[in-house]
Amino acid sequence: MHDFRHRYGRFLTAIEDRGLDGFLVQHRPNLAYLFNFTGSAGLACCLGHETILLVDSRYHEQARATAANCTPRLIRGSFEQALEELLNDRFPGGSSRQRLGLEATHASCDFWLRIQTWSAAVEWAPEHDLIETLRTIKEPGEIDALVHAFELAQGAYARFLDQISPGLAEVRMAGILEMEMREAGGEGTAFPTIMASGPRSSLPHGVAGGRIWGEEELLLIDFGIRSGGYLSDLTRIHLPRGVGKPEIFDVVSEAQHAALDSIRPGVRSSDVDRAARRVIEEAGHGDHFQHGTGHGLGLEVHELPRISPIRPQTLEPGMVFTVEPGIYLPGRLGVRIEDVVAVTETGYRLLSDPDR
Amino acid sequence: MHDFRHRYGRFLTAIEDRGLDGFLVQHRPNLAYLFNFTGSAGLACCLGHETILLVDSRYHEQARATAANCTPRLIRGSFEQALEELLNDRFPGGSSRQRLGLEATHASCDFWLRIQTWSAAVEWAPEHDLIETLRTIKEPGEIDALVHAFELAQGAYARFLDQISPGLAEVRMAGILEMEMREAGGEGTAFPTIMASGPRSSLPHGVAGGRIWGEEELLLIDFGIRSGGYLSDLTRIHLPRGVGKPEIFDVVSEAQHAALDSIRPGVRSSDVDRAARRVIEEAGHGDHFQHGTGHGLGLEVHELPRISPIRPQTLEPGMVFTVEPGIYLPGRLGVRIEDVVAVTETGYRLLSDPDR
Repeated sequence: MHDFRHRYGRFLTAIEDRGLDGFLVQHRPNLAYLFNFTGSAGLACCLGHETILLVDSRYHEQARATAANCTPRLIRGSFEQALEELLNDRFPGGSSRQRLGLEATHASCDFWLRIQTWSAAVEWAPEHDLIETLRTIKEPGEIDALVHAFELAQGAYARFLDQISPGLAEVRMAGILEMEMREAGGEGTAFPTIMASGPRSSLPHGVAGGRIWGEEELLLIDFGIRSGGYLSDLTRIHLPRGVGKPEIFDVVSEAQHAALDSIRPGVRSSDVDRAARRVIEEAGHGDHFQHGTGHGLGLEVHELPRISPIRPQTLEPGMVFTVEPGIYLPGRLGVRIEDVVAVTETGYRLLSDPDR
Repeated sequence: MHDFRHRYGRFLTAIEDRGLDGFLVQHRPNLAYLFNFTGSAGLACCLGHETILLVDSRYHEQARATAANCTPRLIRGSFEQALEELLNDRFPGGSSRQRLGLEATHASCDFWLRIQTWSAAVEWAPEHDLIETLRTIKEPGEIDALVHAFELAQGAYARFLDQISPGLAEVRMAGILEMEMREAGGEGTAFPTIMASGPRSSLPHGVAGGRIWGEEELLLIDFGIRSGGYLSDLTRIHLPRGVGKPEIFDVVSEAQHAALDSIRPGVRSSDVDRAARRVIEEAGHGDHFQHGTGHGLGLEVHELPRISPIRPQTLEPGMVFTVEPGIYLPGRLGVRIEDVVAVTETGYRLLSDPDR
């Protein structure tokens, strides 16, 4: 179970720590995290002592039944109009000035420019990653949800392998895998399935296309399930019987192990990236590995922390991220191996099973 | 086939009409529309005479192979850093001031605040719906792509109906429909399938859940395929054999016909909404129809024009939109019927088949 009350407490503390009187939440995964709201549109206005969740008629019934930590309110016109009215109502002329934070990377330029023209009773403060930072440290219930998602996804993958053979189109195979994930009990797929056969494996994001899987070709499969709101994310290289491992497979595998071995609290995320990258560079493939080694995973496919040279963070227990080095030889071949870990007090715990 | 050259010409004209020297494109469907770029991240900087498409290593190979109207450039660090360098390089100190537009509803507040700190050689102009307005008028090739998407989706729906029976869970049935769409040859689903049984049909956006479809219950199914980048969007009410049509079904059907009858060039989109709403209001269900009557459809599920009282537009030949009135009786029952039309010189053309 998720501890919505606990999260909301951490959220209120974070708001206070940044000297804010309130905070506007627009980003869907953040609305799900704090308020158990999963509609496609909503706007939560936290005013310190209470949070009003503005919803339209599509989601009002649902929000009243399941939302946490907030009071849902049905809007009639636009979200912005409802928000402006709410603020004018709460902070009429002569009120002391309120400092409200908003999600700078999720609010639009347009929204920002318009709220500047509203009542002077509110001062708007663009904030970065306030809720995303809370989400970085997973609760035990979230780790359980992720482990469950990986179990479902890996079960689906095993059944998928029993059904495929060279001669099938990538999209057909992606359909089989997605159907198995659906049957496994998830809400759907976490992202468009990457199913890249033979030379298409050199495209790091080769979403399934019409290409037919040829004899003696490898498949690169990057897939995920959504289960209880949480996402899995795994990449596997499938080699049909009789096809040998390409040389770069062992390099990538060694790079993944080197990265895993470096994971424990206190380590910089950029050092985990470095550990993988060093192995690949030493094998002469530095130019063929141009993405980061991993990324946080939870309610979104890409969360904090980044496991890359950019914006490093210090690892803490409860952080969950992918470890996915790769080598891509343009037009010829690509190999990526991706598993997912949770940082523990002493090291890490694998949430996916690397042997499946 | 899509006429990328023609689109780009219209785009350059629109930029000039707004007094801009260039324009920044960030929104994915707009990148697909103008530059045939379908990666998950990219930033196109049009400088009048040429457009540079900034891409990361995941999509560089793909962009070089297929992008139109632009020169792909591989970035090493962040998109913003690459953009700032590009602009500093093109417009060094002492250059005449350039006025560059950006997509105000897609650019983030964060991005907006940061570019204000860049070189004074560029003046940034937040623009609304510049490319979205171009996209409102579909080319013949786009109409063909949409018709094809509806053919695939409706074929999948017919095969889905042969496979379902009361006793199945909503998610299982959604899985069957999505598999049929996949098999039909699309790239995937256009949005999470809504599969609402019995009383759940009163949730206008009741994404498939664990509920079991009961005997003598209706199903509300809102589903779409993605094919060649274009989306279908249809809602059907499925009544199992022996179950009578609810009274509100006929009201909604009549409302849809009234809306369709009003469609022709020169009519305001709000009047199409009014035509449907009047029928529902006269039946005493005005409070049970709280969303708009329709929305544009194409590369996105929700495009311009809006068929609602808000932000009306005058209909023009080539516009494509849904017509989807509904009545929702909370906790009891909901009915929505959704088809899609293209405005023609004299009236409209149905892109979906209302009888399937």
